[in-house]
Amino acid sequence: MAKEGILLVLSGPSGAGKGTICQELLRTYPGLHYSISATTRKARVGEEHGVNYWFVSHDEFQNMIQDDELLEWAEVYGNFYGTPCRQVKQLLNDGKDVVLEIDAQGATQIKRKFPQGVFVYIAPPSLDELANRIHKRGTDSLDAIKNRLSCANNELSYVHNYNYVVVNDKVQVATNKVAAIITAEKCQVVRNCNIVKEILTNIK
Amino acid sequence: MAKEGILLVLSGPSGAGKGTICQELLRTYPGLHYSISATTRKARVGEEHGVNYWFVSHDEFQNMIQDDELLEWAEVYGNFYGTPCRQVKQLLNDGKDVVLEIDAQGATQIKRKFPQGVFVYIAPPSLDELANRIHKRGTDSLDAIKNRLSCANNELSYVHNYNYVVVNDKVQVATNKVAAIITAEKCQVVRNCNIVKEILTNIK
Repeated sequence: MAKEGILLVLSGPSGAGKGTICQELLRTYPGLHYSISATTRKARVGEEHGVNYWFVSHDEFQNMIQDDELLEWAEVYGNFYGTPCRQVKQLLNDGKDVVLEIDAQGATQIKRKFPQGVFVYIAPPSLDELANRIHKRGTDSLDAIKNRLSCANNELSYVHNYNYVVVNDKVQVATNKVAAIITAEKCQVVRNCNIVKEILTNIK
Repeated sequence: MAKEGILLVLSGPSGAGKGTICQELLRTYPGLHYSISATTRKARVGEEHGVNYWFVSHDEFQNMIQDDELLEWAEVYGNFYGTPCRQVKQLLNDGKDVVLEIDAQGATQIKRKFPQGVFVYIAPPSLDELANRIHKRGTDSLDAIKNRLSCANNELSYVHNYNYVVVNDKVQVATNKVAAIITAEKCQVVRNCNIVKEILTNIK
């Protein structure tokens, strides 16, 4: 039986850079998989079913909730978003590592169902820098910026729920730290019962 | 105040390669320091006080034990060996990381006094491979080899006391894993109270 993979949960306020770090990890960390979310919102131009999201109907989504098929879910502006269990569990059982990029409330739900997950909080170097980054994007209205910063404050208050905190000062350094966290977690004695058992049974 | 450094404790049976990994880490991991042991045995040709060991008298060693100045100590063939607290604690307080290469009994003593240490067990790929490596050294008599293997069995039975287990199949791969463990431990939320406090107090 393959050793179970690692479920890596990345959170952090908007502008902390968790999306960029997630993409860098997927590009560089061998055998890491991205968990595709399910959503009831309509696909935008260029988005593909099974690539960007699993696009499902409201009824299908409600069934997934009732059948406990979601690791977590949330409603945002009338649309539902969630993480289907089945694909994630299949990958983990096959010994593959999976990364999820998710907000703090979602991470809290996952931690209840899957405490052996690795919960990493991506923090901005400072709140001023976070505000700078959101301003620099230049795509948001002033109200949207205020809303993002208020959400950021809410996200930041969850940092204690995580196992690790990585300050994203430079993307490459932060990505290397998250990669080190995956590698280290794979070496934990509690995740290597097979190796430990083998060592102990071979003692003559 | 500098963030406290990591105390890395490396153990593993003779022949598992912990000495080589320790040297590689000291060569490549920025700012890692080696803790110099104290011993009552005589210095061999080429060995220097304060470099290879702190060479002390029996009386001095007994005083260190009585004054609780040793993180751990042991008597081996009439000679005493131990890890002085003061230098290790000073380095850690200054935010420097310290590596100790030590047997399982010594690691157990340290864990009692210093549970926030990071305990890494270096395991051979197999006991057969361990026997091969000890044979290949060619420096030991048959009795010495038997003795080493018997000690190895004893060492292996302690694996459960450690946080991490790294199988040393290839030195470079194993060294990279131990380096990742140090990096990951530095990101643990429980070791970053200052950052977490700063994040939480800056929330507006």
